[in-house]
Amino acid sequence: MSEVVTAWPAIDAVIDSIDLQAEMARGFIEYSQGRCVVPPVGELLLEEDPPGEVHIKYGYVRGGDHYVVKIASGFPRNGVLGLPTSNGMMILFNQRTGEVGRVLLEEGRLTDIRTAAAGALAASTLAPSRVEAVGIIGSGVQARLQLRHLNRVLPGQSVVIHGRTSEHVETCRDDLADLSLDITTTSDPEELAARCNLIVTTTSARTPLLKADWIRAGTCIVAIGSDTPEKQELDHDILAAADLVVCDSMEQCRIRGEVSQALRAGVISESDVVELGSILAGDAPGRSGDEQRIVVDLTGVAVQDLRIAEAVHHRIS
Amino acid sequence: MSEVVTAWPAIDAVIDSIDLQAEMARGFIEYSQGRCVVPPVGELLLEEDPPGEVHIKYGYVRGGDHYVVKIASGFPRNGVLGLPTSNGMMILFNQRTGEVGRVLLEEGRLTDIRTAAAGALAASTLAPSRVEAVGIIGSGVQARLQLRHLNRVLPGQSVVIHGRTSEHVETCRDDLADLSLDITTTSDPEELAARCNLIVTTTSARTPLLKADWIRAGTCIVAIGSDTPEKQELDHDILAAADLVVCDSMEQCRIRGEVSQALRAGVISESDVVELGSILAGDAPGRSGDEQRIVVDLTGVAVQDLRIAEAVHHRIS
Repeated sequence: MSEVVTAWPAIDAVIDSIDLQAEMARGFIEYSQGRCVVPPVGELLLEEDPPGEVHIKYGYVRGGDHYVVKIASGFPRNGVLGLPTSNGMMILFNQRTGEVGRVLLEEGRLTDIRTAAAGALAASTLAPSRVEAVGIIGSGVQARLQLRHLNRVLPGQSVVIHGRTSEHVETCRDDLADLSLDITTTSDPEELAARCNLIVTTTSARTPLLKADWIRAGTCIVAIGSDTPEKQELDHDILAAADLVVCDSMEQCRIRGEVSQALRAGVISESDVVELGSILAGDAPGRSGDEQRIVVDLTGVAVQDLRIAEAVHHRIS
Repeated sequence: MSEVVTAWPAIDAVIDSIDLQAEMARGFIEYSQGRCVVPPVGELLLEEDPPGEVHIKYGYVRGGDHYVVKIASGFPRNGVLGLPTSNGMMILFNQRTGEVGRVLLEEGRLTDIRTAAAGALAASTLAPSRVEAVGIIGSGVQARLQLRHLNRVLPGQSVVIHGRTSEHVETCRDDLADLSLDITTTSDPEELAARCNLIVTTTSARTPLLKADWIRAGTCIVAIGSDTPEKQELDHDILAAADLVVCDSMEQCRIRGEVSQALRAGVISESDVVELGSILAGDAPGRSGDEQRIVVDLTGVAVQDLRIAEAVHHRIS
């Protein structure tokens, strides 16, 4: 048993040795080149008290070693119990026999990490050549992680953090002090948009936090928070006004995330959207000028789970 | 870690102490009374060489302790590698926090067992009062298990086994010798139908193995094998001619199993079908006479996985 089950401490011990940007890039390219089988996300809503949400993402790369099943939960009220709001696990199975390859009891942390790594990859790929300041919307786990991973690829930026609760925003800033960045906070998202031309949104908002006429020319927005049909951080006019709209998975973003909101509102069409993997592969153009407004909508794709889980597995084995 | 992960030997040590019939009955009743949340089955097809099929079933009973996620695979060519064709695991998560309650590394065996227990429950509920002989179609793991579980509720029956490969059928009979039953074999399914008024079908056939005019008055057929839109063991005219058609989940059987085949063929309508849980709860009539032909279509519902997993968990904890 013990040889196939790995708990968080052993994962934590190897995670920093992995080139997460490269793993995410590989996964997005495999996905956009049509080499993956990724069925629709399974969703379990717990509507009792306390409420919770579970996503099951699964799939494989054809000709690869494993298929992955990832179970990730969010229980927003866990904080009052002193528990993390995220939890879950990733499981690798042998693609030719169904045997268990590895159970990673990662408590939802690898989902958080691969999401942050993907955000940083998207930012480094599509940010304007001169980032004036990085804006982070939200002050939770993902806000912290996005900035940490972003600091690896675009180090030393000025940072502005906005969140609903000033106490949480201050705690978030304090927790990031070790990065030695110039971090300011604001209660006004419009001010953040005015100062920042790279913005990462990390909330579970269901009503837009950013408006189209606040967004400066040249800004790249990486939208992380929305991964369901209901969640929305960006006014859909932001996508309508963008010079380039990028998503992780067209198939998923038809029904989930910011792109789905803009499609349903009829302000963009699918032909306006390109996949990040196509840009990374050189099969579609990315940023073509420093005045372009670009939106990247990341809903999280099973191939990211496969890539991070296999990378951890290889280092542990 | 070790306290939440349980491998097969520890599961095997407690499984016989569980009243599986009662657990399955409880689950079917909870399901048919609308107390469960069971999203559509997740399906991952591995179409490479060798082929495989993975089903992900998940859900919970409102107000219960856990939600379950069950991953079950079938790799038909595993036999040549000396590996079982089935594999998988069941995972219980705390319904209020998302924390892992128990990882059961059950290798697909609990799926096999709960399927057999459900078949025996259906048979004991809907068989004619005098079973002349039990017919088993198929000679694999599920054929063996169905007979073992059936023998607990309807002991001492004469048995006829039919399978495609006489060698496999003989091995199956030999493996069941410890039951001390009168077991004969036949290569002719029509002969089986002529001799048996309780028939359990356990194959992965995609073309019908039994025809309507072979089925005697009074026969109860429990159809176990088909759990996808494609698999089919019964000519749909068998369902059309039946006095009572029973399924485990109307929602699932709209798209999976024998009922879905008959619905698509237009020979029955949904109003002709009742759920097993409704009969068990006394909310719908079961058999009302010994001449009735009854078909029970079992596709496997997540609440069965929840019930067996929680029962094992409680005995291990």
